[in-house]
Amino acid sequence: MFSVSITPRVGETDAMGHINNCVAPIWFEQGRTPLFRIFDPNLDFNHETWHLVMVHAEYDYVEQIYCRSVVEIKTWVSHIGKKSFSLKHEAWQEGRLCIKCGVVFVYYNFITQKTEPIPDNIRSRLEQHLITINKEQLTRKREKVKRNR
Amino acid sequence: MFSVSITPRVGETDAMGHINNCVAPIWFEQGRTPLFRIFDPNLDFNHETWHLVMVHAEYDYVEQIYCRSVVEIKTWVSHIGKKSFSLKHEAWQEGRLCIKCGVVFVYYNFITQKTEPIPDNIRSRLEQHLITINKEQLTRKREKVKRNR
Amino acid sequence: MFSVSITPRVGETDAMGHINNCVAPIWFEQGRTPLFRIFDPNLDFNHETWHLVMVHAEYDYVEQIYCRSVVEIKTWVSHIGKKSFSLKHEAWQEGRLCIKCGVVFVYYNFITQKTEPIPDNIRSRLEQHLITINKEQLTRKREKVKRNR
Amino acid sequence: MFSVSITPRVGETDAMGHINNCVAPIWFEQGRTPLFRIFDPNLDFNHETWHLVMVHAEYDYVEQIYCRSVVEIKTWVSHIGKKSFSLKHEAWQEGRLCIKCGVVFVYYNFITQKTEPIPDNIRSRLEQHLITINKEQLTRKREKVKRNR
Repeated sequence: MFSVSITPRVGETDAMGHINNCVAPIWFEQGRTPLFRIFDPNLDFNHETWHLVMVHAEYDYVEQIYCRSVVEIKTWVSHIGKKSFSLKHEAWQEGRLCIKCGVVFVYYNFITQKTEPIPDNIRSRLEQHLITINKEQLTRKREKVKRNR
Repeated sequence: MFSVSITPRVGETDAMGHINNCVAPIWFEQGRTPLFRIFDPNLDFNHETWHLVMVHAEYDYVEQIYCRSVVEIKTWVSHIGKKSFSLKHEAWQEGRLCIKCGVVFVYYNFITQKTEPIPDNIRSRLEQHLITINKEQLTRKREKVKRNR
Repeated sequence: MFSVSITPRVGETDAMGHINNCVAPIWFEQGRTPLFRIFDPNLDFNHETWHLVMVHAEYDYVEQIYCRSVVEIKTWVSHIGKKSFSLKHEAWQEGRLCIKCGVVFVYYNFITQKTEPIPDNIRSRLEQHLITINKEQLTRKREKVKRNR
Repeated sequence: MFSVSITPRVGETDAMGHINNCVAPIWFEQGRTPLFRIFDPNLDFNHETWHLVMVHAEYDYVEQIYCRSVVEIKTWVSHIGKKSFSLKHEAWQEGRLCIKCGVVFVYYNFITQKTEPIPDNIRSRLEQHLITINKEQLTRKREKVKRNR
């Protein structure tokens, strides 16, 4: 599991005094930067080195986040397919789980503009960060979150 | 249905040359500004006038979007509950459906920090923008989108 | 002179209830998109087609901007040098001049990573948008702005 | 002098492969967060606690910044007036001075919507971060920067 600390920015608040919900995707993107280095070690981030396209993202906003203190973004791999993989993220502030996120990426060749199978060396590195939760655990976890709301 | 035209900004591209996926939530937020005026007619946007909190959002990234031309954001109400309602959005560029989005808002009192039932006058205005698609239509629509990919 | 209308976004406010000052550079960038098309007509925006690097920008924040109404961004060319040119921008909301901006770009070859003289055909198109204000006019204009504050 | 480390975000790049110039103001805003705590210790950031309005900002873009490595934002107080004060910022990446910035804030009462003198207790804390460079030093510093370009 990756953990990245983010200091909220003043401009990330909105007129309601909390962090605007559109900021979440950007923070989770930052949370997965260490994982991006598995694919593009130096983050050269060009059409030769970059191979990821996001195809799905979802966010559950559980609690409001404020500017006043650090936010921890936790990131793990939840599924690895042939050409795609899924990540889970959580944003925590002051001991509260504030946002849950799931995203799906496909492995993509920007030169041919086609999807490709995930190379084996990358797959094995992704597997080191794979955490699968069985349905029973998930139900218990969700009930706990509900009680804490 | 609301339709809002957005001119992509140079800084909304990323190093892949396309619009960065984190921009989508911001564009859809802009797409729902006319709908926000149902709740807060002058967009005064303070703790007395504002009553919306996003609790869920999901995005399907179907096609890449580029900086070169206008993007149309379509917005409609897909469900109205007692204290919450759901919206659907689509982002279209050059005749291509590029991103699909669904969001859920709860009606919220920022002073008491509690959810409240949606007032009747607002409910009836939301209903004017309600479009429900039955499952059969949805399946056909999804197949059509797949064929066009 | 170019004029571009911008609808403020909810997420562009900050906790003070006004538009955050960091939004100004992004809006002025959008204001100069029609001018960018002089350099890169289809906004292909790649290392072959793009030739602009910003070297200086300055902003005077005169009045607060709010989310509630459209903002007009006015843009003109204020100086054309051999390898660089300057633009002026103004942001107006509800008849109030809110932000003044000046930026300097150099003509830049992203492949050789070197500055180059502005080509003649581009220079002549820039000249069509050139507005120079002499010092006397500027003083009078500034006094008028002060009186209106 | 304050120093804050910033990890560039993928979405902060643009199609040129470098960090978009509109990101600079946001990073410098983050750089001055420790200084904001002099004014609003818990960053409650509401109309009672917040007293700052930016009136001027300027940026010199010296070198391109890339996504691949951490950026250091250095911040110091350069001038303290009766109702306003000035800050200087620098953004450094991989030993290169990339952006220089100067900003001016006024002390502002958001409830009366009027400027006010900076309170003495805040003034004395600002003075601890005051660095003034005389003109001779500045000229030498600028020549050094030029030589390193």
